[in-house]
Amino acid sequence: MHRVLIIGAGLVGSSIGKALRRAGITVYLEDLATSHALVAASLGAGDVKPLAADEVDLVVVATPPGAIADVVCRSLERFPAAVVTDVGSVKAPIIEQVAERSPHAERYVASHPMAGSQFTGPLTAAADLFDGRTWVVCPSAGNAPEAVDRVRWLAATTGAIIVEIDAAAHDEAVAQVSHVPHLMSILTASHLRAVPGENLKLAGQGIRDVTRIAGSDPGMWRQIISTNADAVRHELEEVASDLEYLISVLDRPSELEAFLRLGQHGAHSLLVKHGQEQAVSAVTVEIPDEPRALARLFGDIGDLGFNVEDFEVNHDAVREVGYLSIAVLADNAEDLRRSLTDQGWRAWNGTGRNRDE
Amino acid sequence: MHRVLIIGAGLVGSSIGKALRRAGITVYLEDLATSHALVAASLGAGDVKPLAADEVDLVVVATPPGAIADVVCRSLERFPAAVVTDVGSVKAPIIEQVAERSPHAERYVASHPMAGSQFTGPLTAAADLFDGRTWVVCPSAGNAPEAVDRVRWLAATTGAIIVEIDAAAHDEAVAQVSHVPHLMSILTASHLRAVPGENLKLAGQGIRDVTRIAGSDPGMWRQIISTNADAVRHELEEVASDLEYLISVLDRPSELEAFLRLGQHGAHSLLVKHGQEQAVSAVTVEIPDEPRALARLFGDIGDLGFNVEDFEVNHDAVREVGYLSIAVLADNAEDLRRSLTDQGWRAWNGTGRNRDE
Repeated sequence: MHRVLIIGAGLVGSSIGKALRRAGITVYLEDLATSHALVAASLGAGDVKPLAADEVDLVVVATPPGAIADVVCRSLERFPAAVVTDVGSVKAPIIEQVAERSPHAERYVASHPMAGSQFTGPLTAAADLFDGRTWVVCPSAGNAPEAVDRVRWLAATTGAIIVEIDAAAHDEAVAQVSHVPHLMSILTASHLRAVPGENLKLAGQGIRDVTRIAGSDPGMWRQIISTNADAVRHELEEVASDLEYLISVLDRPSELEAFLRLGQHGAHSLLVKHGQEQAVSAVTVEIPDEPRALARLFGDIGDLGFNVEDFEVNHDAVREVGYLSIAVLADNAEDLRRSLTDQGWRAWNGTGRNRDE
Repeated sequence: MHRVLIIGAGLVGSSIGKALRRAGITVYLEDLATSHALVAASLGAGDVKPLAADEVDLVVVATPPGAIADVVCRSLERFPAAVVTDVGSVKAPIIEQVAERSPHAERYVASHPMAGSQFTGPLTAAADLFDGRTWVVCPSAGNAPEAVDRVRWLAATTGAIIVEIDAAAHDEAVAQVSHVPHLMSILTASHLRAVPGENLKLAGQGIRDVTRIAGSDPGMWRQIISTNADAVRHELEEVASDLEYLISVLDRPSELEAFLRLGQHGAHSLLVKHGQEQAVSAVTVEIPDEPRALARLFGDIGDLGFNVEDFEVNHDAVREVGYLSIAVLADNAEDLRRSLTDQGWRAWNGTGRNRDE
């Protein structure tokens, strides 16, 4: 049980406070804007009070990105026995700056909880923001194992799943899976400036999903993108060349469809949850030609408690029989097949139309 | 009360069937794949039976895009008294083909319900898919008003909100708010092919939202995009030039932030719901420096029943006071301000820090 000081009572800082308080941990809050800290405290994220140097075991720096390195260095000075971590989205530049500027860099362990929202401020904080989400810990060569353990404890206590990787690998990865998608959302949303208001009437859920994160705070994202500009540029140049290709195949149906399929494949690759490499696998069931057969089948699948990731109905044109292919986590596929067979369904593994395929 | 035949028992066709059955309408279903029609029927989307020429008042063609014009022409022939509509995503080319190929084109009224999902097939159908969604009706010069009325009746009966516009304007608008966002999602998702599986561990909700619609059926989207290729090309070329600009300002913080702000503005412009031009407007409330003040304030707002679109907490560095800016539909802003004032809060219109700003 460590006593934690969170500096920066925004969405992420306040949510960490709430998650730790949920676990009964002592949490203190600070923010340049005292009212933010007070708001967060009033919402149950921790306490606001003057702190002695030995009252804190772990400092979590959750300030805007541009201020992180400074606040980390000052915190290492202020709390000589504490481990200091931060929640910034780009790690290598901060590690570098702290190493250059602080004689206590061995007590700074970089980390990055992969959770947030398009909202800002303590009001949008939630104790469950990190439940089941990835929290990256990036130990440096100089870190003592106990210091790293303290940050791992922090992540685990908030309910997050820990991934430990090197800072440079982290920064490349977030350029790919976070910063570039953010800018793609921005490009899509900014293009609406050329769209007559009348035409926005036709906007559906698709564009709202694509542009949701574009609603995020531009100031914060400017800091994030700027810090990781080289990696982001490299990825965006690839995207630009893909876009050029896409424009060139708009009139070539088979190339266009192949590109759309690449995208579908990419979207499906994200179905793998928390990087646990849980492949998805199919079970196929014959749908007998009886009234309500399908409703009954779905009822049975629901009763068995399997989590269906995706499904597809096919039919055999010759025999006029229907098939349902159900995608479940590969580990569960054989169980599902057996359970369905026990219930009297004709079921087999794979997406083929019969068990011999 | 019209008798409706739906041809094509996929997600959209089956959902229309369910929505109409919910309203007590007689619905018949057909699909090239009889098992799809039977599945849809078993889920309550309508009946499957052989139909005489006078048994149908309205035909809804919900086949894959490439087959629509054909099926419309054949339906006009088969049901001489029926109005025929379709649910395709691109309208002008279909209107043109039907006018060229059918002597009964005056009974064909193009329409487009703006709802769907990344899933396909009758199993994913839902009676409420169209509730509150836009359903575009594109009358042609030759359409009798009664024919247009029958399609308006269809849209209204499913719970949709009708928008009547010209087919060419529709096709430009969907290029902007649907097809281009779809391709941006595809570009983002397809770029994951260059991302090591290890790095996908760091994927959060943001990229999942941006790439959700990229999971849609590539074959269907190839048909949609191909039919609207000219309008899409025009928009994508603008996006390509924005992307080039974005790459060029990655190292220029103020230009980068301005571009991010453009994106934020675009995302916010979609908060206007169903094109009803309901602008969002802010009410600002002073948060007194008292324990639980904010929790109490949010409780009061909840009790008053106003729908909060967005909110932000600010503070006055000098006076150490907090402010809550609440965004609500402009029509409700003054009501909310008055209600909060009645409850004893200091509240005013706008986002400014005091009522004189």
